[in-house]
Amino acid sequence: MADPTIEPPEGAYQGSPGAYSEEAAWALLGPSARLLPCASLADVFDAVLAADTKYGVLPVENSLAGTVPRAYELLLDRGLAAIGETRVRIDHALIGPPSTSIARLRRVLSHPVALDQCTKFFRHHPHIEAVPVFDTAGAVGMVMQNGAGDVAAIASRRAAALHGATILAERIQDHDENWTRFLLLAPASSRSTLTGTRKTIVTFRLPHEPGSLARALQHVAVRDVNLTKIESRPIHERPFEYAFLIEMAAVEAAVDWAELLDDLRSATLDLRVLGAF
Amino acid sequence: MADPTIEPPEGAYQGSPGAYSEEAAWALLGPSARLLPCASLADVFDAVLAADTKYGVLPVENSLAGTVPRAYELLLDRGLAAIGETRVRIDHALIGPPSTSIARLRRVLSHPVALDQCTKFFRHHPHIEAVPVFDTAGAVGMVMQNGAGDVAAIASRRAAALHGATILAERIQDHDENWTRFLLLAPASSRSTLTGTRKTIVTFRLPHEPGSLARALQHVAVRDVNLTKIESRPIHERPFEYAFLIEMAAVEAAVDWAELLDDLRSATLDLRVLGAF
Repeated sequence: MADPTIEPPEGAYQGSPGAYSEEAAWALLGPSARLLPCASLADVFDAVLAADTKYGVLPVENSLAGTVPRAYELLLDRGLAAIGETRVRIDHALIGPPSTSIARLRRVLSHPVALDQCTKFFRHHPHIEAVPVFDTAGAVGMVMQNGAGDVAAIASRRAAALHGATILAERIQDHDENWTRFLLLAPASSRSTLTGTRKTIVTFRLPHEPGSLARALQHVAVRDVNLTKIESRPIHERPFEYAFLIEMAAVEAAVDWAELLDDLRSATLDLRVLGAF
Repeated sequence: MADPTIEPPEGAYQGSPGAYSEEAAWALLGPSARLLPCASLADVFDAVLAADTKYGVLPVENSLAGTVPRAYELLLDRGLAAIGETRVRIDHALIGPPSTSIARLRRVLSHPVALDQCTKFFRHHPHIEAVPVFDTAGAVGMVMQNGAGDVAAIASRRAAALHGATILAERIQDHDENWTRFLLLAPASSRSTLTGTRKTIVTFRLPHEPGSLARALQHVAVRDVNLTKIESRPIHERPFEYAFLIEMAAVEAAVDWAELLDDLRSATLDLRVLGAF
């Protein structure tokens, strides 16, 4: 049974200590926030829905890999609200046991997205096999437990420090500019009013008519609002129909969001606000 | 040295025999096409660029997981052209050695996207660990080589048949409607004229002004053309700027694509045509 004198963790993230998501959680909740590591993104949602923790941290977009698969689908399906966001710079290090060297490596473990961001490294070292696991920082733990000198991991410098591992190479991602954007999630009931909102995330469907998207976006265009993300999403039950996800950011503070959302609602179907912050 | 009497394979796909991508390749190139299995999506592009094969097959979008990470980025970076497309229905089976049963399983191997599509199965069987590997059909091969009765794979029925494995459960994906869309790739020099085109795929950047996307899409809206996909993509070197990818399909055959693309070009920056078919 849980000790009632111990406060529950404030935020849940996917991965294990040393993960980039943990860094995002501290950026969003403060550096002393107690955090709950989760095995999957779905588990992060479940932890907030079960009130095991107040907030969740969700990676949604990476500058090299694009939109994180299933991130927005989970946000839609599970009914949490996005109430904040942050960007974390991703610098991948090659990390191994103290005794090893790159020449001895045969396998490198990491999250599939991290492996995908280091294609040049694997091209230059064709004798090394890329092995996917669910967690960058967890990969460092596995490599250290394994102890063999022919297996390394790709993760953050901090993950190396936490596990007492050695950094064999730094910044091995294909492009120096590599960042991931994270949303801060809370129960939908905690959503604030639209006053003071700088950014909103909405989804909608559109009637099957040429021009329907342009007509809807016209309502955004006439205001001082930037479209910072747009994406069509296949609809599960209707394989040839599409829903749309858009993120809008105010250029100036004085946007009447309630009016804008009403106008958008009139030009679309099933509009839902997934976040406002 | 290659035997000059043996014709090179006609198409490259990511995965191994029994993969959904192989099925897509046969749908696009005919059921008797000789195919080259590749370890990664980047290898598929390389095989076409090196003329090891004429065509490549690229999964771009799944109805449950959304856009395939890096698929469009590779299309942009490597300079091949999309000249056709197909949809493949994805039905995941749970596949193991003949001697096993679900109750005995401790680990299930598959591609991360396939594991993500079967979250309900893993929720109902919390004693089973999901283990990512790079290839659904390859996971069946690993399971059969391993031989232990506590490891199974998630892949197609055809992968089970090819490896002489047993199907322990069928259609274990979260939603029955589960399909992936694939593009057929060829060297950009082989791109046809726009005559007879039904669909085009283009990318562009936009000036940083509210309303610039709505203005560009107005050129699509005034014609009998459906927007079948739209996505903003982060730009590597400019972390706060976005490029856009759109796919457009003619509602009627008589679209003047050259004129439409000229109009779009005048309202956007760096417009590139990635495919027309």
